[in-house]
Amino acid sequence: MRATLMYGAGDVRVETVADPSVQKPTDALVRVVAGCICGSDLWPYASKPATEKGSAMGHEFVGVVEEIGTDVTGVSVGDFVIAPFVSSDGTCEFCQEGLQTSCRHGGHWGGTDEDGGQGERVRVPMADGTLVVVPAGFDEKLIPSLLSLSDVMSTGYHAAVTAGVSEGQTVAVIGDGAVGLSAVLSAKLLGASRIILLGRHTSRTDLGREFGATDVVAERGDEAIAKVKELTNGDGVHAVLEAVGLEDALVTAFAIARAGGTVSRVGAPQYTTVPFGRDEFMRNITLTGGVAPARAYIDVLLPLVLDGSIEPGKVFDRTVDLDGVPAGYQAMADREALKVLVRP
Amino acid sequence: MRATLMYGAGDVRVETVADPSVQKPTDALVRVVAGCICGSDLWPYASKPATEKGSAMGHEFVGVVEEIGTDVTGVSVGDFVIAPFVSSDGTCEFCQEGLQTSCRHGGHWGGTDEDGGQGERVRVPMADGTLVVVPAGFDEKLIPSLLSLSDVMSTGYHAAVTAGVSEGQTVAVIGDGAVGLSAVLSAKLLGASRIILLGRHTSRTDLGREFGATDVVAERGDEAIAKVKELTNGDGVHAVLEAVGLEDALVTAFAIARAGGTVSRVGAPQYTTVPFGRDEFMRNITLTGGVAPARAYIDVLLPLVLDGSIEPGKVFDRTVDLDGVPAGYQAMADREALKVLVRP
Repeated sequence: MRATLMYGAGDVRVETVADPSVQKPTDALVRVVAGCICGSDLWPYASKPATEKGSAMGHEFVGVVEEIGTDVTGVSVGDFVIAPFVSSDGTCEFCQEGLQTSCRHGGHWGGTDEDGGQGERVRVPMADGTLVVVPAGFDEKLIPSLLSLSDVMSTGYHAAVTAGVSEGQTVAVIGDGAVGLSAVLSAKLLGASRIILLGRHTSRTDLGREFGATDVVAERGDEAIAKVKELTNGDGVHAVLEAVGLEDALVTAFAIARAGGTVSRVGAPQYTTVPFGRDEFMRNITLTGGVAPARAYIDVLLPLVLDGSIEPGKVFDRTVDLDGVPAGYQAMADREALKVLVRP
Repeated sequence: MRATLMYGAGDVRVETVADPSVQKPTDALVRVVAGCICGSDLWPYASKPATEKGSAMGHEFVGVVEEIGTDVTGVSVGDFVIAPFVSSDGTCEFCQEGLQTSCRHGGHWGGTDEDGGQGERVRVPMADGTLVVVPAGFDEKLIPSLLSLSDVMSTGYHAAVTAGVSEGQTVAVIGDGAVGLSAVLSAKLLGASRIILLGRHTSRTDLGREFGATDVVAERGDEAIAKVKELTNGDGVHAVLEAVGLEDALVTAFAIARAGGTVSRVGAPQYTTVPFGRDEFMRNITLTGGVAPARAYIDVLLPLVLDGSIEPGKVFDRTVDLDGVPAGYQAMADREALKVLVRP
């Protein structure tokens, strides 16, 4: 089959690799209908050292089950399924608690040992625990939104849930990437009455407004802080959803959080320490968030996608076939595309 | 009147100062029945630069109201009252939300402008918002426990509440000082089934066991981490209550937190950054806590003290009069005393 491999920074190739197959009784083989490029793929695309052996790319996909192992009972051949961005057994304490990212037997897509979602097929381990079946008969137009539940929308939702966003609150979202925009949509879903989006790309912040942002702050750093304070009577916001992953974003987040407020970080950390000392202590700021257990949130969000209540798939603004994937990476790196959908 | 003043590190003096009086219609004048020395007083006692003018010390006290301003309605002359460790108006949004430490008009005891609790009398601003009246007729033996609600017990309780300690959880408490021991008692109150106390002073950890600790870990650093992991099936604990304030304690806290767990810090931070990067992100660790709104918790804890359900005053292991205060500081600094009660 054909699949996407990364050999180093800026070096993404689409090659023919071995066809995957069911190896364990709990596996399923899924034909990818749609995958995509993640903002987090841009970190290795910018910095990965050159390697001899390529790493399979893509950790978000939806597709059709082609084959199942003998122990698989929850998924059938022909089912249309959503794969969260990690695999999980569905049975350990962490999975039962809804923290499937800490599954005792969990694994990741791609790399040198597993298939990635930016290819034609994927062997899915622990299929019963990992995959979510979409009821048959849905409108094909929903595929981008269904795919967004794999990662980006679930990650935005995780930010809003862990920040405890509730009815009537004022929320700020830092970052106008696909996760930030999903966080806006999620804050709206949870009842925030005012949502301030910090971002400077008009095409993106426009979608943010469509998703529920009431205010857009294009300034950065101290100017952004001053602006948010001005918008909130000097107090700051109840919840900050941080969707960037850089220390500067956290500095802004802490400064614009209201006393007693919460900062939830869902941007993959490109830092090792956090400036979270006496000031944040005196104001009782909470820092939460982390990698999103998408598997848990799909149960909540899938019905909303199917009935048209939300359309998170709007974050995809470009579609490519497999041959178009390398250019897709570059377009996202150049910020020409917000998020690229891949149809193998 | 006589009061305690600090002029610099190691330089605590008891001197005669001007008698306080009611200055505003919302003030009350309180005669201190009992005050105490706080673990946080030891930071300036160790490092405060020498000054010409002394700072009034003490932010915890209980006493009898001697005089009230014309606008005070909730407190009467003769009432026995508990003063939380900050003053608050009781009416602003933050006070209404139970975050009186962020009161729009809040203030602190002591320093060069206010009276401190380690003295004979204190002018209390915003008496209606600040003071809690203890119903008449209580047993005098309860005074240490009533005094503990001013700060130390409320601070331990804040750690447990913000960490979300709930029925059946496993909790670790870092620090066997008076706040740490209060955190143990609080975790027990909130239903924790297993409480691991990290501390190495047997006389203190013995009181920790009396308060509800099921295990004591005397090791430090990596050895302490290994020990807690061993006690928890390799997983770590649901909640860590950090009552030290040093970066090392936070490093231990993050390492022993279970995936999805919470670290609540109530030790006054002696650090400016926190090592809270990718590992904590991948495990979804939350960092919360801060300065405790004691005023909010007194409403919950006072009935439990009055009916004998809890006896947090046991953290006081030495009593001095005003003349004994300088020696009391030294005894706490030398760890000869856990917490010193002052009877002016």
